[in-house]
Amino acid sequence: MIRRFTFGNPIPTEAVVLNIEKRKAVPPIDESIAVMDGMAEIKRTVNGFIMKMRDEDIVYGLGENVRGINKRGWVYESNNSDEPKHEETRKSLYGSHNFIVIAGEKPSENYGLFIDTPGKVRFDIGYSKYDELKIEVIPADGDSEDYTSELNLDLYIIEEDTVLKTVKSFRGLVGKSYIAPKWAFGYGQSRWSYMSSDEVREVVKKHRDNHIPLDSLYLDIDYMDDFMDFTTNPDTFADFKELVEDMRKEHIHLVPIIDAGVKAKEGYKVYDEGVQNGYFCKDENGEDFLVGVWPGKCVLPDMLNDEARAWFGNWYKVLLDLGIDGFWNDMNEPALFYSEKRLKKVFDEIGEYKNKNLDVNTFFEFSELAGSIANNPEDYKSFYHNYKGQKIRHDKVHNLFGYYMTRSASEAFKRLVPDKNILMYSRSSYIGMHRYAGIWQGDNRAFWSHLLMNIQMMPSLNMCGFLYTGADLGGFGDDTTSDLMIRWLSFGIFTPLMRNHSARGTRRQEVYQFDSKSMDMMSGIISLRYRLIPYLYDAYTKACEQDEMMFRPLGMDYPSDKDARRVEDQLMIGDAIMVSPVYTQNATGRSVYIPENMTMLRFKGAELVEETSLTKGHTFIDMPLGEVCIFVREGKELKLADAGAEYVEE
Amino acid sequence: MIRRFTFGNPIPTEAVVLNIEKRKAVPPIDESIAVMDGMAEIKRTVNGFIMKMRDEDIVYGLGENVRGINKRGWVYESNNSDEPKHEETRKSLYGSHNFIVIAGEKPSENYGLFIDTPGKVRFDIGYSKYDELKIEVIPADGDSEDYTSELNLDLYIIEEDTVLKTVKSFRGLVGKSYIAPKWAFGYGQSRWSYMSSDEVREVVKKHRDNHIPLDSLYLDIDYMDDFMDFTTNPDTFADFKELVEDMRKEHIHLVPIIDAGVKAKEGYKVYDEGVQNGYFCKDENGEDFLVGVWPGKCVLPDMLNDEARAWFGNWYKVLLDLGIDGFWNDMNEPALFYSEKRLKKVFDEIGEYKNKNLDVNTFFEFSELAGSIANNPEDYKSFYHNYKGQKIRHDKVHNLFGYYMTRSASEAFKRLVPDKNILMYSRSSYIGMHRYAGIWQGDNRAFWSHLLMNIQMMPSLNMCGFLYTGADLGGFGDDTTSDLMIRWLSFGIFTPLMRNHSARGTRRQEVYQFDSKSMDMMSGIISLRYRLIPYLYDAYTKACEQDEMMFRPLGMDYPSDKDARRVEDQLMIGDAIMVSPVYTQNATGRSVYIPENMTMLRFKGAELVEETSLTKGHTFIDMPLGEVCIFVREGKELKLADAGAEYVEE
Repeated sequence: MIRRFTFGNPIPTEAVVLNIEKRKAVPPIDESIAVMDGMAEIKRTVNGFIMKMRDEDIVYGLGENVRGINKRGWVYESNNSDEPKHEETRKSLYGSHNFIVIAGEKPSENYGLFIDTPGKVRFDIGYSKYDELKIEVIPADGDSEDYTSELNLDLYIIEEDTVLKTVKSFRGLVGKSYIAPKWAFGYGQSRWSYMSSDEVREVVKKHRDNHIPLDSLYLDIDYMDDFMDFTTNPDTFADFKELVEDMRKEHIHLVPIIDAGVKAKEGYKVYDEGVQNGYFCKDENGEDFLVGVWPGKCVLPDMLNDEARAWFGNWYKVLLDLGIDGFWNDMNEPALFYSEKRLKKVFDEIGEYKNKNLDVNTFFEFSELAGSIANNPEDYKSFYHNYKGQKIRHDKVHNLFGYYMTRSASEAFKRLVPDKNILMYSRSSYIGMHRYAGIWQGDNRAFWSHLLMNIQMMPSLNMCGFLYTGADLGGFGDDTTSDLMIRWLSFGIFTPLMRNHSARGTRRQEVYQFDSKSMDMMSGIISLRYRLIPYLYDAYTKACEQDEMMFRPLGMDYPSDKDARRVEDQLMIGDAIMVSPVYTQNATGRSVYIPENMTMLRFKGAELVEETSLTKGHTFIDMPLGEVCIFVREGKELKLADAGAEYVEE
Repeated sequence: MIRRFTFGNPIPTEAVVLNIEKRKAVPPIDESIAVMDGMAEIKRTVNGFIMKMRDEDIVYGLGENVRGINKRGWVYESNNSDEPKHEETRKSLYGSHNFIVIAGEKPSENYGLFIDTPGKVRFDIGYSKYDELKIEVIPADGDSEDYTSELNLDLYIIEEDTVLKTVKSFRGLVGKSYIAPKWAFGYGQSRWSYMSSDEVREVVKKHRDNHIPLDSLYLDIDYMDDFMDFTTNPDTFADFKELVEDMRKEHIHLVPIIDAGVKAKEGYKVYDEGVQNGYFCKDENGEDFLVGVWPGKCVLPDMLNDEARAWFGNWYKVLLDLGIDGFWNDMNEPALFYSEKRLKKVFDEIGEYKNKNLDVNTFFEFSELAGSIANNPEDYKSFYHNYKGQKIRHDKVHNLFGYYMTRSASEAFKRLVPDKNILMYSRSSYIGMHRYAGIWQGDNRAFWSHLLMNIQMMPSLNMCGFLYTGADLGGFGDDTTSDLMIRWLSFGIFTPLMRNHSARGTRRQEVYQFDSKSMDMMSGIISLRYRLIPYLYDAYTKACEQDEMMFRPLGMDYPSDKDARRVEDQLMIGDAIMVSPVYTQNATGRSVYIPENMTMLRFKGAELVEETSLTKGHTFIDMPLGEVCIFVREGKELKLADAGAEYVEE
C-alpha cells in the first residue's frame, strides 16, 4: 500500500511514474500523519516529520551516503556534493536518495518513506536523540519560515508485508531501472588520465600481453581539446576515430567522460550555439553565469530546460558517430571550482589579512577562505533555471541537475541510436535518474574503510533503483597497496560496474603495475569475474525487470533471524549466493555468519579448488589473499562460464 | 642479545641508557649486516637497510602511527607532525618511534630493530614490494647524497627467544618508563576550551550532581592570558588560585596545557628573559626565528640547549606554586601555523593568481598555496638549535623537539618539587621521552575507525615505552554520537589516560550533554573504570618497573597460535585479562577469538551481571550498548574495587 501526502506546492522532480491519488487533507503541525502496524506514529512537525524508533528497529536506505547498512546514529543531508573525502562525518555525497525503510524485528513490521523534493532534506536518524527519527526540510534561503503553509513536498508512505516487498512497491512507484549492455559487465581500466592514444594502446596491450581480461578503457578529461565537451585533442588523440576502431578490434570499448561545464570560449561551437539560443544558466541579471571548472571559465547548460536538454543531448552524436558506445557524466552536482564573483571577493578578503598578526582566530579564518571558494552554497543561490517555463533559482532544484544532465544524454540516445544499448552512468543523481543510467560511487580513496563503504552502499543504492553501479576499485584518491587492490577486486568482481580507477598523482594501479605475484592474484580474480558474468548479468537484469534488489543485506532475506539482521559486512547477491568480503589489511580470514546451510565454493583465482558444506551459525573462515569464497544457498546453483575469457563476447 | 652498529657520526638523541659496545666495522653497501636465526638476512643499502619478509611474518612496532597492529602493507615516516586528520594514508603522526619487531611463525623466530637518529626515517613495510622491508634514511636537504660514508645513525639489532623478551630487552636499552600518579587513572574531562573559572566550576558541578565520577579537569589554551605560557587570564580566570583550591576540595585536579611557542611580546617576562639570554631558536642570521602559533607571532625556546631547557622548565613553577600538579605539553612537533617569511611569500604568490583564468592546474596550485603555509618543511630548515655546543639546523633534530620540551618540564619538577609525582604528558615524542612523561594520542576525530586506531596503537606505544597513554575519548575533531561515546568509553576505561576531549565548534560531549539513557550508560561505564583501577594501576606500575607491555596483541602472548597471531582488535591487558571492544556502529555484539579457556565477566555499567565460561576458539558474543565484557584467563583473578567511588582517593 502506498499513501501519498502532498504538502504545499512541490516543485516536480519526475522521480515518480505512478500517479498515486493524493490524500485530500494533510494533517496540521504536531498531528499524526499515519500510524503503522506495530510501529511508530509519524507526526508532522513545523518543518518535516518525526517518529520514534525502538532499540531493535533498523533504518535502511538513503542510497549513496556514508556509514553502514543500518543508517542509525548519524544525520544525513540530501544535498548533491562534489565530495572527494567520503569521511564518516560527512553528511552528503553526490546523490540525493530520500527513501528509507524502518524495519522492526517482526518481518511484517516495516514501512518506507519517500520524501520527494529537489531541495535539501535532513535525516536525523537517532543523532540528536537516540530513539528519534527526524526528517526536516532545510528551506532555501529567502523562503518563508512559516511552514504551516509552506512545506512543499510529496510524502509517500509505503507499507507491505516485508522489507523486500516494501522496496519492490517503492520501485514500482519510481519506474524500471536502466539496463546496461552486457559488455559493461567486463572489467574496465581507468585513470585520470590516459594522456594520449599511444598510452591508451599501451595500457590495452599490457593487459592483453599479460592475459588480464579487459573490456573497456576509460578516457578521463585529457582526451578532450582543452577540456571542451564533445571535442578530442587534436595533438594527443589526433587518430581518435582510428583508435576507437582499433580498440574495437581488440574487443575494447572506449568510454569517454562528459563534463557538466561548457568552456566559455567564442568559436567553440557548443558554447556559441548555447549562447545564441539562451541555453545556459543565467545569473540574476539574465547574463550567462560564469563558473570555473576544468577548462577555466565555463557556463552551465540549463539541463532542466527541455529544449536546452534536448540540444545538449544531441551533442553526444559527435562521439557516437566516432563509434563510441559508452559515456560517464561527471561534475554534474554541478561541481564549481569557483564562481567569477566569489573568486574576486576572496582575493579582496585575502588582501585584508596581509598585514595582520595572525593569531588562532584570524589564521583559521584566513585558511578557511581558500577552502570556501569551491562549491560554495552562496554560488548555488546565484543562478537560475528555466524549468517548465518558470524561472527558478538553482538551489531549489539543486539535486536534480545531474539527473537531468544524464537524462539529456539518455533521451538523445533513444532518438539518435534507437537500436543500440549505450552504456551510461553518472556521478550525481536523484531518484528517477535510475531509469536512464547507472552511477559510479564517486571519488573514493585508497582506504580499507572505503572498501567497506562500497560493500555497504550496494544494497542502499539498489533499494533506490541504482543497479548498475560500483566503486573505483583500489581507490581513486591516495596511494593504493597491492593487498588493498586484491581485496577490493575480490569484492568488485560481484558489482555490475567493475572498474579500476585512480587519480592523477597517485600510485599507478593498473594490475600489471604490481609485483608479479600480486599481478597474478589480481588477474586470476578478474578471470573469475568473467566466469561469474552469466550468473551476475542474469541476476542483474532480473532485478531490473522485476523491481528487485540484486544486492541485499542479510536482514532482508532472513528477517526473522536476529543475528542476520545485524550483519553489516556480508551481502546476498541474486537468488543463489552470499558474499563475505575481507576488508581489513593483513587479515587472512574472517568471521562469517551463515544464515542457513550453505555450500562454500573456494576459488584460487578463477579456479574452483574446494567445496565445503557449512551449517547455519557463526564461523571463522580462512580467506588468504588471492582466494575468493562464495556461499551458495541450499538448493541453489551457481552457474559458471568456462575459464579463460579475456573479454565478454568470448 | 643486543648488537649495535654505528654508521658515520650520529647526532646523539639520548634515547638509549645502556652503553652497548659498538661493532668495530660496519658492512659496506649491499653486504650483509646480520643473519637472524631462521629469519631473513639484513642487508645494507645505499641509504639504509633491506630484508625479506615471509608471508607469515608479522611486523610489530612504530609506536604512534596509523594502520593496524601488524604494520605490513604501508610506508611510514618518522617525522613528527601536527596531524589532525589521522587518515589511513598518512605516514606520520606526532611521534617518531623507530622500533620494530619482525615475528615469524615460530616463537623463537623474531628480531627487533631500533634505528636511532633524530632525522627522517622511512619504513617501507611491503608497500613497494609485498615481501620486502626497506628502511631508508631521508637525508636532510643539503647533506651529501654519498651515503657510503654518511649514513649517520645507530642501528640496534635485538634478538631474544620470544617477541615479548625482545621488547623487554629493548626497553632495558632505553630505560624505565615514567610512572604517573594514581589520581591520573581517574576520569578526566576536557574541551578546547573551558572559557572561564565559572565554566570550570559548572562542568565539575554537573559531574558531581549527576554522580559521574571525575578526578581531573583540563584547561586548554583559553585559561591563559592571550595564549602566553605560564600566565592566567586576568578576566576570565581572575580567581585562578582559589579555583585550584576549591577544585582540590572537590577532589579535582586542574591540568593546564603548555605550548611550545612563546609569544613575542616585549614586557612578557618569559619572552624578555629568553631574548636577553639568547634562549630562542635563531634564523640563519642569528635573529630570533619568528613563527605564528596561537597568540600570533611567537619564538621557540631552544629546548635542545641545556641551559635554555633548564630555564624554560623553571617557569612551570609559576603554576606549581598555584597548586597545579599536572600538565600537558602541546604543539611541540613543533607545530607552526606559519613563519613570517612564508606568509609574506604566499601573499605575494596569491597576488599573481588574481587575474588568471584559473583552470584545473592553476586552480589546484592556488588552492594548495593556503594549505602549504602551516608546518611547511622549508620552515623546519630555516632555524637553528644550539645542541651540545653545536649550531645545528632544526630539520636534522626535528624529531627531538617535543621530547626535549617535555624533559625540560620533567627535570624541573625533580629540582623544584622532588617529593611530588607530577602528571606530565606530551603530544610530540621520541623514544627516550618515555622516561620523562606519557603521551596522548593527539587530535583524533569522532570516527569509529579512530576508536579502532586507539585500540591498535596501545600495544605499539607500549613496545616503545609509552605506558601512560590514551586517546581523546569520543573523538577530538568532528561531531560525536552518543553510541560512539559509549563504545569509546567502554574501551577507554582500560587505558591509563582516560580523558574525554573535544574541539571547539564540535558537539558538546561531556557525559551529561546526552539524553538521560545514554548518560546513565556512560556514567555506569566510568564507574566501572573506578572498580578496575586497583587492577589497572597495578598492571601499569608493574609494566613500568619491569620493562614490560601492559597492552599486548594476542600474538605476543600466544605466539604458537596461528589464529591468535592474526587478531587485530582484541588486547591482553596486564596478566589476567583480555578485552574485545565493539568499534562499529549499530553492532550489538561481535566475533571474539578466545585464545585459551577463559571466564567472561559481563558488566552492566559498574555491576557484574554474569559470569560465563568460554572455551578456546572463535565465538560470537552479544555486547549491547552499555555492557562491557572482560575475559579473565584461566587461573587468574580480576580484583575489583567496591562500586560507588566518584574519585580515585575514595
